[in-house]
Amino acid sequence: MDTNDIRFFEVGPRDGLQNESRVLSCADRVAMIEKLVDAGVRDVEIGSFVHPRWVPQMAQTDEVARQITRREGVRYWALVPNLKGLERAREAGVEHVAVFMSATEAHNQSNLNRSLDESLAALKRTTEAAVSEGMVVRAYISTVFGCPFEGDVDFARVLEIGEELLGNGAEHLSLGDTIGAGTPLQVGQGCARAVQHFGVERVALHLHDTQGLAVASALMAYQAGVRLFDGAVGGMGGCPYAPGAAGNLASEDLVNLLLSMGARVDADLSALCEVTGWLSEEVGLSVRSRYYPYWRSQQEQDT
Amino acid sequence: MDTNDIRFFEVGPRDGLQNESRVLSCADRVAMIEKLVDAGVRDVEIGSFVHPRWVPQMAQTDEVARQITRREGVRYWALVPNLKGLERAREAGVEHVAVFMSATEAHNQSNLNRSLDESLAALKRTTEAAVSEGMVVRAYISTVFGCPFEGDVDFARVLEIGEELLGNGAEHLSLGDTIGAGTPLQVGQGCARAVQHFGVERVALHLHDTQGLAVASALMAYQAGVRLFDGAVGGMGGCPYAPGAAGNLASEDLVNLLLSMGARVDADLSALCEVTGWLSEEVGLSVRSRYYPYWRSQQEQDT
Repeated sequence: MDTNDIRFFEVGPRDGLQNESRVLSCADRVAMIEKLVDAGVRDVEIGSFVHPRWVPQMAQTDEVARQITRREGVRYWALVPNLKGLERAREAGVEHVAVFMSATEAHNQSNLNRSLDESLAALKRTTEAAVSEGMVVRAYISTVFGCPFEGDVDFARVLEIGEELLGNGAEHLSLGDTIGAGTPLQVGQGCARAVQHFGVERVALHLHDTQGLAVASALMAYQAGVRLFDGAVGGMGGCPYAPGAAGNLASEDLVNLLLSMGARVDADLSALCEVTGWLSEEVGLSVRSRYYPYWRSQQEQDT
Repeated sequence: MDTNDIRFFEVGPRDGLQNESRVLSCADRVAMIEKLVDAGVRDVEIGSFVHPRWVPQMAQTDEVARQITRREGVRYWALVPNLKGLERAREAGVEHVAVFMSATEAHNQSNLNRSLDESLAALKRTTEAAVSEGMVVRAYISTVFGCPFEGDVDFARVLEIGEELLGNGAEHLSLGDTIGAGTPLQVGQGCARAVQHFGVERVALHLHDTQGLAVASALMAYQAGVRLFDGAVGGMGGCPYAPGAAGNLASEDLVNLLLSMGARVDADLSALCEVTGWLSEEVGLSVRSRYYPYWRSQQEQDT
C-alpha cells in the first residue's frame, strides 16, 4: 500500500440504514449497494444478521446478499452478532463478516447485555469459527473515544481489546467513535497509538459527525497515519435531534477531505454524490452531508 | 495575548445577514447584536454602509448603530466601501470600520468595478481618513484561497496587498476564503506564511463552509498560529443551493473546535447556540451549523 493510498470502507447500507426510521425495501438496498460498487467502492457492508426484533431495518439481509450481483475485487461484508448470525451469513454466501463489541463495560452491557469478558469470549468463538471456514473478519470496537455512560475512555483498554480481537484472527479493527464524542486531538492521538501498535493495515477509523468535528478528526487521523476509513454515503444514520443517533461521517465529506490532502481513493467523489442524490430524491432519505449540496449546485450550474 | 487565547470576531449581523434573502427589521438586527455581546462576543460587525441599492439587507445600518446599547470593551465594526460610507459611519457614531478588496483582478472588477490598483488607492484614502479621525480599521482581502474567475490565487500577491493595507494604517487583515475553495492544507500553509509575515495580531481568518471543509481548515489555521477568527452565528449567509453564496463558518462550529483544541475563547459556546436558536425559531432564518442541532438535542435531554 502506497503511503497516500486510502482503503475506503462504505458502511451506509448497514450502519447508515440501520439507524434510519424508514425501512428500505430489499430492492432498494440491493440497488444502493450496486450503485456504491459502481462508484468505485471496494469494501461495502451490505447489512447485518442481528435479529430483526432488534434491528428491523436489517431484516432480509440474507435476501440482499443473495440478490446483489457481485463484482470481482469487491468485498461484501455483513455484521454478525454471534455463531447463529455467522451461520446465516454463511448460508447467504457472505464471505466477509464483522463482529462487534464496546470498549466500555457500561455500553457493552447496555447494547449487548454482556460484560466485556463475555463479549471477548463470544467474539473469539465467532471469529475462530469464521476464520476456520475461510471467511475474513473485521472487528468493531465501539465507544472508543467516549462512552454515553462512562464518559472518557482509557485508550490503553482499547489497545488491549484490539490485541485480543486480532489475536483471534480478525483481519483488522474498526475503531468507532459511536457517539461522536471524540475531539480531533483525541482522535489523532488515539489513532497514532493504534497505528503504531497494530500497523497501518489493521486500523480503520469509524466516525460519527455528532458535533460537527468528524471531518477535522479524520484530518488528524490521516496525519496520524490512518489509511483505512469508514463512511456512510449521504451521512445517513440518524436524525440530528435524536441524541445518540447522530449520523455517520458522510462518505463524500470524507473522500473530499482525503482528496484535498493529496490521498488516492478508489471511490469516485462525484459518483458517490450521485448515490446520495438517488437516496435523497428517489428513495426519500434525508441527507446530512456537507459536500453534497455543493456538488449539486455545481451540477445545476453546469447544465 | 497568551498563546492559546483566541480573538473571535462575529460577522453574522453583516456578512451573515447581507447574504440572507430575508431582510431583518432594525429591531431584530439590534437584538441580534446585543444578544451576541451578551454571549461574550467582543468584536462584532454590526452592518455595512454599502449603498442599499446593492445590499438592501444592510439599509438602516446607521439606525442600527444608533440604537444598540454599547458595552465597554466591545468593538462594534461596520463595513465602509469608500469615503462616503466612512462619513455615514462616523455620523452614526461608529469608531471601528472595515474596508475591503479582492486578491484577484477579475473578482475585484466584478465585485467592485475597479482594478486592484484603483482599489488599493481608494482603500488608502479611506483608511488614512479613518485613522486621522481616530478610528480603527480592519482590512478584508477576499478570494484569498481561490477565485471564482481566476481559480488558484498566488499567495505572494495576498501578502503584497496585505502589506500595503497595513502600511496605510489598518490594524489587522481578514483573509477571506470568500467562495470556500481553500483546502485545509492550503489554508494552513497560507496562514503560516501570513502569521510569519505580519505577526499573529494582524491576521484574521474568514472562512465560508462551502464544501464542508471549513472546520478542518480552521484547525489547520490554528495549528499554523492563527489566533483571530471570524465566524457568523448559525452559519448564516447563503443558501446551500446558490453557488457563490455559501454560508459563513458557523461561530458555534468554530468555537466548539477551538475549545476542543484547548484554546480560550471569550464567547460562550452555549450562549452562542442560544442566539442561533433565537434566529432560527423567533426570527425564522435557516440555520446551517453542525453543532447547534447537537446542542439543542442535549438541551431537550436535560429538560
